[in-house]
Amino acid sequence: MRRAHPSVTPWEVSGEINYEKLIKEFGVEKIDEKILERIKKHSPIHYMLKRKVFFAGRDLKWILDEYDKGNKFFLYTGRAPSGKVHLGHIMPWLFTKWLQDIFDVELWFQFPDEEKMLFKKDISFSDTKKFLEDNMLDVIALGFNPKKTHFIIDTKHAQLMYKPACEVAKKITFSMVKTSFGLNESSNIGQIFYTSMQAVPAFLPSIIKEKNIPCLIPHAVDQDPHFRLSRDILPKLGYYKPASIQCIFLPPLSGNEGKMSSSEQYTIYTTDSPKEVKDKINKYAFSGGQATLDEHRKKGGNPYIDVSFQYLRMLLEEDDKKLKQIHDDYKFGKLTTGELKKYTIEKINSFLEKHQKEREKAKKKIDEFIYTS
Amino acid sequence: MRRAHPSVTPWEVSGEINYEKLIKEFGVEKIDEKILERIKKHSPIHYMLKRKVFFAGRDLKWILDEYDKGNKFFLYTGRAPSGKVHLGHIMPWLFTKWLQDIFDVELWFQFPDEEKMLFKKDISFSDTKKFLEDNMLDVIALGFNPKKTHFIIDTKHAQLMYKPACEVAKKITFSMVKTSFGLNESSNIGQIFYTSMQAVPAFLPSIIKEKNIPCLIPHAVDQDPHFRLSRDILPKLGYYKPASIQCIFLPPLSGNEGKMSSSEQYTIYTTDSPKEVKDKINKYAFSGGQATLDEHRKKGGNPYIDVSFQYLRMLLEEDDKKLKQIHDDYKFGKLTTGELKKYTIEKINSFLEKHQKEREKAKKKIDEFIYTS
Repeated sequence: MRRAHPSVTPWEVSGEINYEKLIKEFGVEKIDEKILERIKKHSPIHYMLKRKVFFAGRDLKWILDEYDKGNKFFLYTGRAPSGKVHLGHIMPWLFTKWLQDIFDVELWFQFPDEEKMLFKKDISFSDTKKFLEDNMLDVIALGFNPKKTHFIIDTKHAQLMYKPACEVAKKITFSMVKTSFGLNESSNIGQIFYTSMQAVPAFLPSIIKEKNIPCLIPHAVDQDPHFRLSRDILPKLGYYKPASIQCIFLPPLSGNEGKMSSSEQYTIYTTDSPKEVKDKINKYAFSGGQATLDEHRKKGGNPYIDVSFQYLRMLLEEDDKKLKQIHDDYKFGKLTTGELKKYTIEKINSFLEKHQKEREKAKKKIDEFIYTS
Repeated sequence: MRRAHPSVTPWEVSGEINYEKLIKEFGVEKIDEKILERIKKHSPIHYMLKRKVFFAGRDLKWILDEYDKGNKFFLYTGRAPSGKVHLGHIMPWLFTKWLQDIFDVELWFQFPDEEKMLFKKDISFSDTKKFLEDNMLDVIALGFNPKKTHFIIDTKHAQLMYKPACEVAKKITFSMVKTSFGLNESSNIGQIFYTSMQAVPAFLPSIIKEKNIPCLIPHAVDQDPHFRLSRDILPKLGYYKPASIQCIFLPPLSGNEGKMSSSEQYTIYTTDSPKEVKDKINKYAFSGGQATLDEHRKKGGNPYIDVSFQYLRMLLEEDDKKLKQIHDDYKFGKLTTGELKKYTIEKINSFLEKHQKEREKAKKKIDEFIYTS
């Protein structure tokens, strides 16, 4: 991966990202062989772990120790509704579902419907409302266990959340959020308070069940500043530090610059038609191939900068052998960019065909997922 | 009233308060004869208005204009539970009840049970919870109309309040709360956000009833910074600026320095026994009398610095003639400090006897007052 100076806050990811540097800067722990061995006791290792899409974490050894002692954790992740769901969102959720399945644990899924309203000038509650239900469909469509999955919506569940958020807030000063999130004196007071609300699901199940329950948060690395703060605060309130398992971003079609973001014009949404997918990949997916076919046959392509290959590696191609074959064939010029794109389009469309069917069915299931006490 | 440099924020009132200076500094409008004439159309003028206990306001002319046009306002006031209710709290609530009665309007009474928790190091939610119900009893005991009075508790009604609070918060920067409330970088992020929650009841009825309703807030002058901010923000959200009618503080037993505060050791609580009241007034009520009886008879006392007289003037003696008699007799040495204190004790105890009976009955009425949608 190329080196540069990344700008990573939960609200902005730009520039080329050097993940090794992130590990060092954020102080997260790289997922090593020992951790993988521990997970292997529960299931064959997920391809996103093997391929270092999920590459780092905090307190993973501890969370596995507790699990082995019979002290089950719960999972917590989330989505701030503000636009359509794209493949970049799907990636960590698929992994989260795998964690839920292999450990047989609860998932608390937060929809902080005020976050984007507070942080984006042009986004109002009517925008976030519009996308809230829409986004829920994508989560449900991935097949989470409705009996063990609880949706928490900040404004809807504020009666549960605001009070514990105040407990968190009392322990966090303006200086702290200034440093952690790059906020300043012109930041609005909702932005300043917001991290308190994001901390709550990490101990809400402990409040509800009246016992301290370990929490594991699968999330993209840009959210680390929130949870690093939460980890400082929660023990002061009598709860465990939440553990985390963190992934890199699926790159945008334009290449490895920042994360795939809905603000990018060229993003593959879960509701895209087969034709849209085909057109987007063919037109915009950054290629690691050579300028001419002749040259490509001779010199070969570069899978590491090829977005189609990265989509296969990070999300779409579960089969390691198949992936290696594609990698090698592309690298040695046997596979052309056109062929690689064609295969990627097929994989995406096959995923989306199933996903869109499940998404339709999900419309009837929303109520099963929304938490009620 | 003596002059000094007051420190008035919603959380701290200290020093001797010069109300004329406050009017100038806060930019509130003095209640003039024209306003009193307008109110007189609805009822004989309340003694707290006549005596300038309620001495200032914002947009009172407008609120009366709207009322006369048939556009009824609602009242909004509140109490942050953190200790027992004392006479200093009762004073504006009695006036609020009078407003409710003469204008036949709804009262939305907020109990921001997170405020003191966020602002006081040693106050937790279990403290505010303890006093929440206790404080409600005092409000109910004053005889508010249960059909037209709605209690709003910030944590309990957060589902109603958090979302509009975010709308407010989006329009307020850290710089603004820094200036308005003297917050700084070491302030916790709950304190910083808090004013958004205090703004909400000023337009919550408008949200609930889906029409813009004028709001009149009776409050002690120290709360003005909150509502001054609200007045800037609410029109940006499509609501009226809340109007206000503001009072000075009932002095503590020690004299005209700051407001009667539960943090003062010598405060008359609504639950005090007749003996406690007698002892406190006799021992601690600052006297405007002379050092010896002889001197008092000769020189007379000073009612303006005499706390007993001020309690009669501001709260206990509704009868203007009787008050004038006491004033004159004291000023000319006919009435001794002992006699003045004795009368004040009788008035307080007679008020508290009735209040404590109503307070007992109120225990069964709480549910009638808590807002349910």
